[in-house]
Amino acid sequence: MNQHLQGLIKWVQDKNLDIAYISNPTNISYFSGFFQDPEERVTGLFVFPDKDPFLFTPALSIQEVKRSGWPYDVYGYLDHEDPFALIASHIRERIADPLRWGIEKDDLPVYRFEATMQNFPNATFPEDASRFIEVKKLIKTPDEIALLEQAGRDADRAFAAGFAALHTGVTEQAVVAEIEYAMMKSGVMQMSFDTIVQAGANAANPHGGPELNKIQSGQMVLFDLGTVNKGYISDSTRTVAFGPIDDKQKEIHRVCLEANLAAMDAARPGVTAAQLDKIARDIIEKAGYGEYFNHRLGHGIGTSTHEFPSIMEGNDLVLEPGMCFSIEPGIYIPGFAGVRIEDCVHITADGNEPFTHTTKELQTFTD
Amino acid sequence: MNQHLQGLIKWVQDKNLDIAYISNPTNISYFSGFFQDPEERVTGLFVFPDKDPFLFTPALSIQEVKRSGWPYDVYGYLDHEDPFALIASHIRERIADPLRWGIEKDDLPVYRFEATMQNFPNATFPEDASRFIEVKKLIKTPDEIALLEQAGRDADRAFAAGFAALHTGVTEQAVVAEIEYAMMKSGVMQMSFDTIVQAGANAANPHGGPELNKIQSGQMVLFDLGTVNKGYISDSTRTVAFGPIDDKQKEIHRVCLEANLAAMDAARPGVTAAQLDKIARDIIEKAGYGEYFNHRLGHGIGTSTHEFPSIMEGNDLVLEPGMCFSIEPGIYIPGFAGVRIEDCVHITADGNEPFTHTTKELQTFTD
Repeated sequence: MNQHLQGLIKWVQDKNLDIAYISNPTNISYFSGFFQDPEERVTGLFVFPDKDPFLFTPALSIQEVKRSGWPYDVYGYLDHEDPFALIASHIRERIADPLRWGIEKDDLPVYRFEATMQNFPNATFPEDASRFIEVKKLIKTPDEIALLEQAGRDADRAFAAGFAALHTGVTEQAVVAEIEYAMMKSGVMQMSFDTIVQAGANAANPHGGPELNKIQSGQMVLFDLGTVNKGYISDSTRTVAFGPIDDKQKEIHRVCLEANLAAMDAARPGVTAAQLDKIARDIIEKAGYGEYFNHRLGHGIGTSTHEFPSIMEGNDLVLEPGMCFSIEPGIYIPGFAGVRIEDCVHITADGNEPFTHTTKELQTFTD
Repeated sequence: MNQHLQGLIKWVQDKNLDIAYISNPTNISYFSGFFQDPEERVTGLFVFPDKDPFLFTPALSIQEVKRSGWPYDVYGYLDHEDPFALIASHIRERIADPLRWGIEKDDLPVYRFEATMQNFPNATFPEDASRFIEVKKLIKTPDEIALLEQAGRDADRAFAAGFAALHTGVTEQAVVAEIEYAMMKSGVMQMSFDTIVQAGANAANPHGGPELNKIQSGQMVLFDLGTVNKGYISDSTRTVAFGPIDDKQKEIHRVCLEANLAAMDAARPGVTAAQLDKIARDIIEKAGYGEYFNHRLGHGIGTSTHEFPSIMEGNDLVLEPGMCFSIEPGIYIPGFAGVRIEDCVHITADGNEPFTHTTKELQTFTD
């Protein structure tokens, strides 16, 4: 049995639960090795303190489950069948009336929660598996770090493809096309999020995306991208110059880089997440750009960008070896330009190692 | 105010609700015009019977909301703030203690549901907005059908790019790369799901994906793909021959096409979803392949592939003009080959019109 699944069963035992219902596809994959693309059909992993676990999936996916190497039972359902009635019957083959449930409260929608309660009217939900999983995923194993390192190397190649695609008049979207094509041609079939290429003032919109803007000499261009390697991801940002840029653009790049490097330098065991955020934020504030850095310094990464630790004000979590997260200060001046510089790192015994190695110094590209 | 938002407010009024909380990003976009990529941060649309609605988003997204043309209030939150406390305060500016809530039970996770209840301990949840939205989205307007038609034309171009990429020894994944590159280069930045190209026996796995299998003469190759056009999608499947194929492959293609065409011919107002499924299924069963058609005939489409109507056994919904769904019989023989032929259609006054027009007759490609 894999280590992650063992940990989940131990949690069920320690919490005196009768059952845990894992519903999030990424987490099902983390514990079972079987990944199902999120869709409206129902997939679940059911775990017991003293019985073998089982997977429940659409009938269509049974072959894929078997191919994934899952060694326990798997049950399917057809589109016209009631999945929750079938799940209930498979549970009852193992335990007549499970009373204490662990569910993923961050994931399970109210409808499926109510369907579960209808089949098990005595069920109580004393434990939130989301909180357990968050903490369990916080410290990555050496195997997981190796997977993240490969994803980081892929991201470095993606930057190279993107930088090579820069020329006067090319659209942001066309640069994205070249990046993703280069990745797919080399076997990286999935980006971890929609690739972002933003030039000039568009980069001042940190939640925007690539558009039909044509890249012009004198602009900074922001690249934020990531890849997926066997379920583990990369996420990195570089901001480069296309042609000669003005002094103010150079200044915000310099300040942002200084903030990034200060945080990279400080990230080690014993520092808190909030302290790390403050180290970067202070530099940007002192330079007079504090109002233009309107997000946290970083987020955890692993099987997604939605993990712990969150590197932000108020989070007193103390960093430990094996924690993996982004360091991504940004300065976004509406109508003018935006810069963000991001590496994901893993904390080591006495510091940290980044997963991406593309230079962060201001690079200038030309036709 | 747009027609969809008007319909939502009318539903809130008709059901005597004090508030509706729309949480699904696709549905927020449907009602507000603002789309936020799903992420762990909180985005919500809050609607009242007699007050203006508001959007709540990460602070990062405020500019995007304004640019989207949303004419009402929008409130942001920073990463270290408690979004549900802020949402509660903005609600209380409008109504002190909303008692009757409509929530999206298919979407809202238990954690956010409980956070809502903690802020409004008197709240009740008598109405499921998911059920309202399902029915509301069931009949597409002419504007929506025009958007789906454009998405269909894009999918036809994607097939052409995929067929052109077929040659001996190319991997399934490399063909996907060519399809998605061709789409992005022409401005289609998003596929509606991960493009599927499966050759030979891999196509017998209807929930599998493209791999490093090298395409060989004598195989059938299945293409299942879709594109996104301003939030509206296409979804279509063709199965073609690469080089000369054997008689059994030809036969399952012929049977599957016959099932597809019979259902296309029968889809019109007055027929039920279950009848349509049966028309196609009977043909495949009579030909002796019933056990190899292990999914419903089709699913609704619009802003996603997770819509009503579901074309399956047991669904007695009567088809009406404006309903949009897939017709996609398949025959999957493990270890041998798989075929699926799919168009999405919209029901018209006296029949239906497909959104995709790539020929469904067996095409043969060679080096």
